[in-house]
Amino acid sequence: MLMSFFKQLHKDAGSEARTGLISTDHGDILTPAFMPVGTQATVKTLDSADLKNINSQIILGNTYHLHLQPGEDIIAEAGGLHRFMNWPGPILTDSGGFQVFSLGLQKEKKSVGQQGSLVKITDDGVTFRSHRDGSLHTFTPEVATDIQHKLGADIIMAFDECTPDDASLEYTKEAMDRTHRWAKRSLVAHQKNTSYHGYRQYLFGIIQGAISKDLREASAKYIASLDFDGIAIGGESIGYNMEKTGDIIDWVRPHLPESKPRYAMGIGLNPTDLLIAVEHGIDMFDCVAPTRLARHGMLFIFDKENKHRLNIKNAAFVSDKNPIDSSCDCSTCKNYSRSYLHHLFAADEILALRLSSIHNLRFMLKLMEDTRAAIKEDKFLELKNKWIKKSA
Amino acid sequence: MLMSFFKQLHKDAGSEARTGLISTDHGDILTPAFMPVGTQATVKTLDSADLKNINSQIILGNTYHLHLQPGEDIIAEAGGLHRFMNWPGPILTDSGGFQVFSLGLQKEKKSVGQQGSLVKITDDGVTFRSHRDGSLHTFTPEVATDIQHKLGADIIMAFDECTPDDASLEYTKEAMDRTHRWAKRSLVAHQKNTSYHGYRQYLFGIIQGAISKDLREASAKYIASLDFDGIAIGGESIGYNMEKTGDIIDWVRPHLPESKPRYAMGIGLNPTDLLIAVEHGIDMFDCVAPTRLARHGMLFIFDKENKHRLNIKNAAFVSDKNPIDSSCDCSTCKNYSRSYLHHLFAADEILALRLSSIHNLRFMLKLMEDTRAAIKEDKFLELKNKWIKKSA
Repeated sequence: MLMSFFKQLHKDAGSEARTGLISTDHGDILTPAFMPVGTQATVKTLDSADLKNINSQIILGNTYHLHLQPGEDIIAEAGGLHRFMNWPGPILTDSGGFQVFSLGLQKEKKSVGQQGSLVKITDDGVTFRSHRDGSLHTFTPEVATDIQHKLGADIIMAFDECTPDDASLEYTKEAMDRTHRWAKRSLVAHQKNTSYHGYRQYLFGIIQGAISKDLREASAKYIASLDFDGIAIGGESIGYNMEKTGDIIDWVRPHLPESKPRYAMGIGLNPTDLLIAVEHGIDMFDCVAPTRLARHGMLFIFDKENKHRLNIKNAAFVSDKNPIDSSCDCSTCKNYSRSYLHHLFAADEILALRLSSIHNLRFMLKLMEDTRAAIKEDKFLELKNKWIKKSA
Repeated sequence: MLMSFFKQLHKDAGSEARTGLISTDHGDILTPAFMPVGTQATVKTLDSADLKNINSQIILGNTYHLHLQPGEDIIAEAGGLHRFMNWPGPILTDSGGFQVFSLGLQKEKKSVGQQGSLVKITDDGVTFRSHRDGSLHTFTPEVATDIQHKLGADIIMAFDECTPDDASLEYTKEAMDRTHRWAKRSLVAHQKNTSYHGYRQYLFGIIQGAISKDLREASAKYIASLDFDGIAIGGESIGYNMEKTGDIIDWVRPHLPESKPRYAMGIGLNPTDLLIAVEHGIDMFDCVAPTRLARHGMLFIFDKENKHRLNIKNAAFVSDKNPIDSSCDCSTCKNYSRSYLHHLFAADEILALRLSSIHNLRFMLKLMEDTRAAIKEDKFLELKNKWIKKSA
């Protein structure tokens, strides 16, 4: 009997929150799941043993970055990304679409919709210059799919164009329609062969449409109509404006089948953002913020009054013998004090970055473990209220 | 019965090499022993679990750096350096003498013997400006001993002045005589209380005298005449010019008791340098080079023809699936390829630094394990010839 790729396990009685199980050839993923981001074949500062120790179920890789360095052929030659980075668990690669646009246009200080010298969009695909060496590259749906086949992640993404919220409705629709055509082409390219390096790969489609309810609904309907294994929600607001994120998820959710996992791209700036996404029915999220914040000394703690964060560089922690968070079970909290962490940052010691990253990631993953347990008992809203202050 | 601090276990039949056992309240150290350097309460990029995994028997801390950041009082409040950095094994702290002179004078582009605005030497001690914030500090033998008591290392060092080889004979003698007076004062200060944080501390004296045979012999005799627990050999050449290092060790060794461990400060730029020091009868060495080289991609391998090194940044390794060194038992060699390491450096990923440091340190520690085994069987010269090309 074939195991299905995704199965909803339990739906919370008081919200859209649900638990589920994703099965891949590299292992299972219980959802809701936070996915640490390993842009360049490493979750920054961590090795694969660290990822195992924090109990990461799945990690992300980035098609744009890995294409430029070391190149998909080097990774394919190594037997795929899992072997290259010695990570035996599931991996998801994004399509590179987001980076092609955001890195290229950032550099030119242009917004999406403007054609710049670094990024040229046609209906066929996107030509861009490498942020590393200025070399010219072209991504089409077929190229992005081919690169992801070579990288060999368990879950790969359709090539898309992510429009900013301030783009005109006209441009947003034009980009959405292009994204839909690219989605179809990605699917056709993928279905020619869904198995690389001996493993089955699953393809997700991406809903766009920025902050237009009409476009979001149309995009949800179209992407849901295609034979994708899962559905992602992209866009500038997702993860950066959680109120809008909640609205957008609510617009699209009614059009999505229960039988496919839902992935909101880029959520996780704050621990509580995960809970908001879960409440609206999302199963998967990723964000670079936990590790980026960690490298700046912003560490997650349970503290409703202060956005669940402390700044370990603050002089208040110079001789504080407590762990970062007394309820955290990460190796950093078990073995090191706030005082030691404070010292490592003050002394510019590289170790500070890894110990902090381990903590912030484990904090997010533990919150998701607690969330799955709460949903199972129909107590999701109780958990949410423990973490999020009621608005006045 | 009291365990002695040091015991010679076996002397090699064909050289001055010997094995021994140092016993501290934090554990035993089999000698010859290479000691990884943890200047600022961390061996750069590694945590205490990493140090255990590479089988480090003892690590170093630095009095100068720890005094400036976070300060000895913070560390004392944490229960000493072992607890502060969560390293349960033996620790040695140097006295800060070397850094006071070298960092201060480097900054002023002056050589030792010249009084500069950043470093002022009197018979009482040394006044210097912090390399961090320019603040004024004074180290005397009593101050350096007191700081080391508070840090609580198992082995602490007498405060000394390290003269460069190009100083005049007159200045070298003057500095040596001062170092001798400081050695005596360090000993007096230490013997008032040899137990801090509940642990016994042992004090080593340091032989100076630069490249003068007469001064080195005089210094060895004087330092050996005092009630130190071990004898160190300091100086600019030690570890940087191995031929001179061998000569200096041969000059002083006849004057040192067999019953005390011998520590040559700063040896370990190359794996083979350890073997040269061992051959001349040295028991302990430390060097920042293995980790510094690692952070620059210079990795140790067994390769007699190429100084036992490779540069992993070299394009030759871009798709090399082999481990750094096929005979190495470190976690980096067991889990990652040269290709992956090459990529991490090319992508400026922080993980490159830790994986490389783990390898270079484990490589040195493994070489010392092999060395101790060879001495035990009177086969040290066989091992040495395996590693070092016979000179023409």
